[in-house]
Amino acid sequence: MTDFEPQDVTVAGDRSPDRRPVTIRRQVVLVADLAGTMVFAIEGAHAAIRAGLDLLGVLVLSFVVALGGGIIRDLLIGATPPSAIRDWRYPVLAFVAGLATFLLHLQVESVPAALLTTLDAVGLALFAVAGAEKALDFNIHPFMATLMGAMTGCGGGVIRDMLLARVPVVLVADIYASAAWAGAAVVVVGRRFSCSPALAAALGFVACFLLRMAAVRFGWQLPRIAG
Amino acid sequence: MTDFEPQDVTVAGDRSPDRRPVTIRRQVVLVADLAGTMVFAIEGAHAAIRAGLDLLGVLVLSFVVALGGGIIRDLLIGATPPSAIRDWRYPVLAFVAGLATFLLHLQVESVPAALLTTLDAVGLALFAVAGAEKALDFNIHPFMATLMGAMTGCGGGVIRDMLLARVPVVLVADIYASAAWAGAAVVVVGRRFSCSPALAAALGFVACFLLRMAAVRFGWQLPRIAG
Amino acid sequence: MTDFEPQDVTVAGDRSPDRRPVTIRRQVVLVADLAGTMVFAIEGAHAAIRAGLDLLGVLVLSFVVALGGGIIRDLLIGATPPSAIRDWRYPVLAFVAGLATFLLHLQVESVPAALLTTLDAVGLALFAVAGAEKALDFNIHPFMATLMGAMTGCGGGVIRDMLLARVPVVLVADIYASAAWAGAAVVVVGRRFSCSPALAAALGFVACFLLRMAAVRFGWQLPRIAG
Repeated sequence: MTDFEPQDVTVAGDRSPDRRPVTIRRQVVLVADLAGTMVFAIEGAHAAIRAGLDLLGVLVLSFVVALGGGIIRDLLIGATPPSAIRDWRYPVLAFVAGLATFLLHLQVESVPAALLTTLDAVGLALFAVAGAEKALDFNIHPFMATLMGAMTGCGGGVIRDMLLARVPVVLVADIYASAAWAGAAVVVVGRRFSCSPALAAALGFVACFLLRMAAVRFGWQLPRIAG
Repeated sequence: MTDFEPQDVTVAGDRSPDRRPVTIRRQVVLVADLAGTMVFAIEGAHAAIRAGLDLLGVLVLSFVVALGGGIIRDLLIGATPPSAIRDWRYPVLAFVAGLATFLLHLQVESVPAALLTTLDAVGLALFAVAGAEKALDFNIHPFMATLMGAMTGCGGGVIRDMLLARVPVVLVADIYASAAWAGAAVVVVGRRFSCSPALAAALGFVACFLLRMAAVRFGWQLPRIAG
Repeated sequence: MTDFEPQDVTVAGDRSPDRRPVTIRRQVVLVADLAGTMVFAIEGAHAAIRAGLDLLGVLVLSFVVALGGGIIRDLLIGATPPSAIRDWRYPVLAFVAGLATFLLHLQVESVPAALLTTLDAVGLALFAVAGAEKALDFNIHPFMATLMGAMTGCGGGVIRDMLLARVPVVLVADIYASAAWAGAAVVVVGRRFSCSPALAAALGFVACFLLRMAAVRFGWQLPRIAG
């Protein structure tokens, strides 16, 4: 990403006397971001194929699931054009992942569910952490930054379900959005207590990932009022 | 709201030689805004509970119904970040109202429908007036400002219905969005004819509220073409 | 459109020594834009009537189908407020077309389907070309500009289907969004190879229109994976 990024300025400005750690951190963030984008794009394509959409629908759902949450976050925090529109690499990666899923759908079908769930939890945690960080970098109130982290992690899935004309699954069941929210909250609280950005991000990632995996493993659900 | 608000500047700049009326008006607007937010958040939580959503879904619908219309308006008129993102008090109030509705749902169930309808009409009128005013303050064309008022009043309910995978009720039945539109139009016309902002707002509120209540009382419907 | 438009600056700055061609081109663009808006508004109203919506629902769908794609494009490329909000002529035209369709629905029903399909393809091609051009004028990456063109052409129909609680038809069947994408790509590639803006626009229009009409005529479909 060659264009101006407030995040870099913030990181460069505090606590890091030389540029090396910043550059390394930027690369780690970039790789994590691209990995999360790819996982979510594959899931979007998979959902589109199962819903009987055509190739264009598959590509649209790859894009939307991978990038929709970040786009809504950027619109809400005033970071326009959203980075997924400014940086062509993210959409291209989403489309390539979607197309590959379409062509190799039999192989994707045979991936064990446990692996998909784990990769999805990784993607969720990456996006929740990145979303909270970007909101803080744009001077959004810490409480709202936790919401922006959750939105980054879950927004794409919500739009996917709206496009498929069904109630978003995160509103009905599972510890999913709440895991993203918790991870984002850990990032924000960590920053408040003067953790380094890298440590806060790592703690937030672990919190979200472990909470999500434990919820799947033990079948945890949020309370609900019986009809 | 401690940050810069164009609305205050406008009000301070015209016709008011001292600051006192402005301060009082600001407080009235704030209280009205918070009251409308609370009523809509309770309704959103109520709809979520009836649709079988879990606690997270209840909180999301509280947020969306209370703040979704204003957020879309702010994105459309270029007031970013939207005030519901910049000012943490609105989301916190929406979440608290949603959580309280979840915990006290039996009590909420027993509230008479007529009271709920009346409170809802109050919230609708408050939001329609506030939405039209904010659009005018951002130099949006008067005709578009009436649409922004209607959007502020009804947008949250539209997103609620989209999330619940059903056709938005305001598009199908009832004098609801049209009452909001009428109230917003009264505000805009009043301002054009040099009413004081307070008088224009009061007239718009009364117009929307009375039209909505009369429509409920007498079962008024907009025309529709039989299938 | 009397307010500042980056598009005009770009056009005025390159290759046109006098103002005459620019003015003529602006008028052609304006007429084309208004024609596309009217066609799409009629289609939105038609869909609303068939879905049993009331008069307000008909007006909302006229607005959304005619202007929704352009509004989302403008939000994504950072052109806020969107031109459909800044320029009252577009919404007024959409509402007038929607109201006329409501009043004259029997006559609209009797319009031959082939004519409607042709007009729709004209509107699609106009919007795809205009959307790609505007994105380029806002310095969006060429690849993303092709997506913005497709979004301008199809976004309104996607929101229509979401409001009607059904899976957007462009995701499931037909060469429609892909025709818009192809037309937008022709515009972008033409500009890259130093075509005049007018020639690139004309080529993009023809490509989208012919591809769409051929797809209807010969029943072309995109590939899909059998369930």
